[in-house]
Amino acid sequence: MALFYVRMDVDIPLDLDPTVRTETLAREKEYSQELQRAGKWVHIWRVVGQYSNISIFDVESPDELHEILWNLPLFAYMTMEVLPLTGHPSSIA
Amino acid sequence: MALFYVRMDVDIPLDLDPTVRTETLAREKEYSQELQRAGKWVHIWRVVGQYSNISIFDVESPDELHEILWNLPLFAYMTMEVLPLTGHPSSIA
Amino acid sequence: MALFYVRMDVDIPLDLDPTVRTETLAREKEYSQELQRAGKWVHIWRVVGQYSNISIFDVESPDELHEILWNLPLFAYMTMEVLPLTGHPSSIA
Amino acid sequence: MALFYVRMDVDIPLDLDPTVRTETLAREKEYSQELQRAGKWVHIWRVVGQYSNISIFDVESPDELHEILWNLPLFAYMTMEVLPLTGHPSSIA
Amino acid sequence: MALFYVRMDVDIPLDLDPTVRTETLAREKEYSQELQRAGKWVHIWRVVGQYSNISIFDVESPDELHEILWNLPLFAYMTMEVLPLTGHPSSIA
Amino acid sequence: MALFYVRMDVDIPLDLDPTVRTETLAREKEYSQELQRAGKWVHIWRVVGQYSNISIFDVESPDELHEILWNLPLFAYMTMEVLPLTGHPSSIA
Amino acid sequence: MALFYVRMDVDIPLDLDPTVRTETLAREKEYSQELQRAGKWVHIWRVVGQYSNISIFDVESPDELHEILWNLPLFAYMTMEVLPLTGHPSSIA
Amino acid sequence: MALFYVRMDVDIPLDLDPTVRTETLAREKEYSQELQRAGKWVHIWRVVGQYSNISIFDVESPDELHEILWNLPLFAYMTMEVLPLTGHPSSIA
Amino acid sequence: MALFYVRMDVDIPLDLDPTVRTETLAREKEYSQELQRAGKWVHIWRVVGQYSNISIFDVESPDELHEILWNLPLFAYMTMEVLPLTGHPSSIA
Amino acid sequence: MALFYVRMDVDIPLDLDPTVRTETLAREKEYSQELQRAGKWVHIWRVVGQYSNISIFDVESPDELHEILWNLPLFAYMTMEVLPLTGHPSSIA
Repeated sequence: MALFYVRMDVDIPLDLDPTVRTETLAREKEYSQELQRAGKWVHIWRVVGQYSNISIFDVESPDELHEILWNLPLFAYMTMEVLPLTGHPSSIA
Repeated sequence: MALFYVRMDVDIPLDLDPTVRTETLAREKEYSQELQRAGKWVHIWRVVGQYSNISIFDVESPDELHEILWNLPLFAYMTMEVLPLTGHPSSIA
Repeated sequence: MALFYVRMDVDIPLDLDPTVRTETLAREKEYSQELQRAGKWVHIWRVVGQYSNISIFDVESPDELHEILWNLPLFAYMTMEVLPLTGHPSSIA
Repeated sequence: MALFYVRMDVDIPLDLDPTVRTETLAREKEYSQELQRAGKWVHIWRVVGQYSNISIFDVESPDELHEILWNLPLFAYMTMEVLPLTGHPSSIA
Repeated sequence: MALFYVRMDVDIPLDLDPTVRTETLAREKEYSQELQRAGKWVHIWRVVGQYSNISIFDVESPDELHEILWNLPLFAYMTMEVLPLTGHPSSIA
Repeated sequence: MALFYVRMDVDIPLDLDPTVRTETLAREKEYSQELQRAGKWVHIWRVVGQYSNISIFDVESPDELHEILWNLPLFAYMTMEVLPLTGHPSSIA
Repeated sequence: MALFYVRMDVDIPLDLDPTVRTETLAREKEYSQELQRAGKWVHIWRVVGQYSNISIFDVESPDELHEILWNLPLFAYMTMEVLPLTGHPSSIA
Repeated sequence: MALFYVRMDVDIPLDLDPTVRTETLAREKEYSQELQRAGKWVHIWRVVGQYSNISIFDVESPDELHEILWNLPLFAYMTMEVLPLTGHPSSIA
Repeated sequence: MALFYVRMDVDIPLDLDPTVRTETLAREKEYSQELQRAGKWVHIWRVVGQYSNISIFDVESPDELHEILWNLPLFAYMTMEVLPLTGHPSSIA
Repeated sequence: MALFYVRMDVDIPLDLDPTVRTETLAREKEYSQELQRAGKWVHIWRVVGQYSNISIFDVESPDELHEILWNLPLFAYMTMEVLPLTGHPSSIA
């Protein structure tokens, strides 16, 4: 089991074809929700005032995380920060 | 209701009196766990390889968050990043 | 009640259609003034020599702030910094 | 008339004599409130989770602002960012 | 009276129409020299090896400085740093 | 299986007791070599001109990596950068 | 013998002709694998969540490394960080 | 003739002996004024809210500038930025 | 006499007309070699893995250096860092 | 043969014993000059206004460069930047 913090900042070019844009966003949402239902993408929050999310992933390995992130429909338009996490000694979870 | 991401980086001076250090760390743990039990400090993870945590707070207001952070026993030894969060449209939560 | 500092830096592409530009700026102004009259956008100042503003928002929650910022007509052309604020112990306000 | 944004980040050495600390903080508060009452220091907010404030000054000139900041009792322990402001065309104030 | 340091870094798009470019540069020069003759733009130096200048302005107020900078013919192609100045105690001027 | 890149920058205080220093460095070396022999710390190189190393770890999980790094005898004197790795599609390994 | 750490961050323009893109990526892979087989490009890993690799080169000299990097089919689309390495005193290799 | 912009940021240790401090500041002032009278240190301004100055030097050569800066009584407590300047084509000076 | 370190980072747009590109690079080379033969551009090295050079100039003055750099055929595609140098007390040159 | 650019920024603690300081500086000078005479340390310049040097080394390998830098008497008080160099195609040297 491997826990990761991922921050994704989205920057879609202003001149992207509107149909491509709409279709890509729909696929991104579906892709994300499928992983949420599978228990891999355990949290996703929007950062206030930013086209960005902060997410927590719970995966088998760094390999699986890369597979997931690399195939995000919005991957080409994103900048990412990835940090491995571990349990905190003060956590009661 | 107000959701916040907080990253805390701890830097305790190397020459801090060991008793003060031990006692402060104990108080920090107790303080954190009390807030976790109260449902205010909803997540805390350790960042791998760092004396740092990434936390999620669920509080009444920015005022309440400041009150909580300012009174952390380790506050004087920490650097913090605070980001307001909101629900993500793709979240199934 | 939740107080926020927001700095917005505007970067409109040089080749944006002049009509779109003019119309977007007019909508931005109207949108901003409506929120000022509603007491949500309590201060807005121009930073000298920059196409930027420093603003103070007084809203119900981070959720409401995000709703406001995300719908700014100029949102796609802006970079933002958002900081939660709280009362200062030295303030006489 | 001259408007300025000032962010002050405070970093008091951990080994400062507690009496000096208490006395300096008291003088800082008194100094700040006197300037607030005189209408020079028009806003002061605490940044959530930081030993920092964001302030707005309304003074005669940059010279007067420097005089005020240089004489802050905590000046030697502060890092500052100073930005001149002007009225925003969208402001209804 | 208000003194300001301004550094302007110019970045004209490589594909700007040559006539527009030539005409804008001519207007910039005329605009700058008019302000120099009026005693507002008291110094302007080129930074060696950069398409940049370091300037000193002596104006009535931050408001007047913003008015001047905002109307620079090259404003849309510039990045600026603005610092308020005051007399130095060691100056013999 | 989980692969990680770790860069460690060492900054031992100049006034550290020479005996403590020597003894800590000896324990660090022994600790590192034990992990190398166990196949966990698979590469370690010195960065030219820096008191730094670039290392590759091959561990069970982020949890195990944190356990290893947190217990480094030099941990209190180090700054670390940790990046999860995965196989590269061009690799022939 | 000379050892180098190289991090390559790839940024292929979104509007690059798909045939050119496919063909360039194929040449890059072939070029990389040839150097791996020759024992010059001794390690290549993908950084999780990034279009980036971390590589180790074992070459005759800085001159040979430059020759190799400059001729990468993707060179024009890459940003690179190059650090010379040397044996680490704790290494058992 | 050689023109230079120099920004000096002063950071005197809080525990410096008060007599040494007073005496060093007096020597700094005298040294600066001598160079101003000699026409070498042609401008010096205080940056508002900072223990910093922005200065213009008019010297024979980079060698002479270094000689001057290196011998500043406060040199050990300063961080400096040095930029060579040249005449600006828009200058009427 | 005035010595300068200059680092030039070249970034030619990917869509520049190939003939313009070839012709500009040829003029750059000729221009550089003429200045090398004149003893003004005393060293030029390529930084490994970068489209960058590190150069040493030996000129009459900052004015002459600016004249040289400003007229580089590649100037519009370069970012530069310029540092004045002086003799080092340990140098045996 | 391997060419390297090295920038060394020196930061000797203000409270270092004056005898140790003088003696260390003398050893540094002797060490540097020995390497200059051996043709390893081929250039050393002082950066104007900084306690820094920019140097060029011509060594057998990165290993030899590390050996040289690591044994600098001032090593513990220095921050370094190391860049491998190669011949420039425009160089007439």
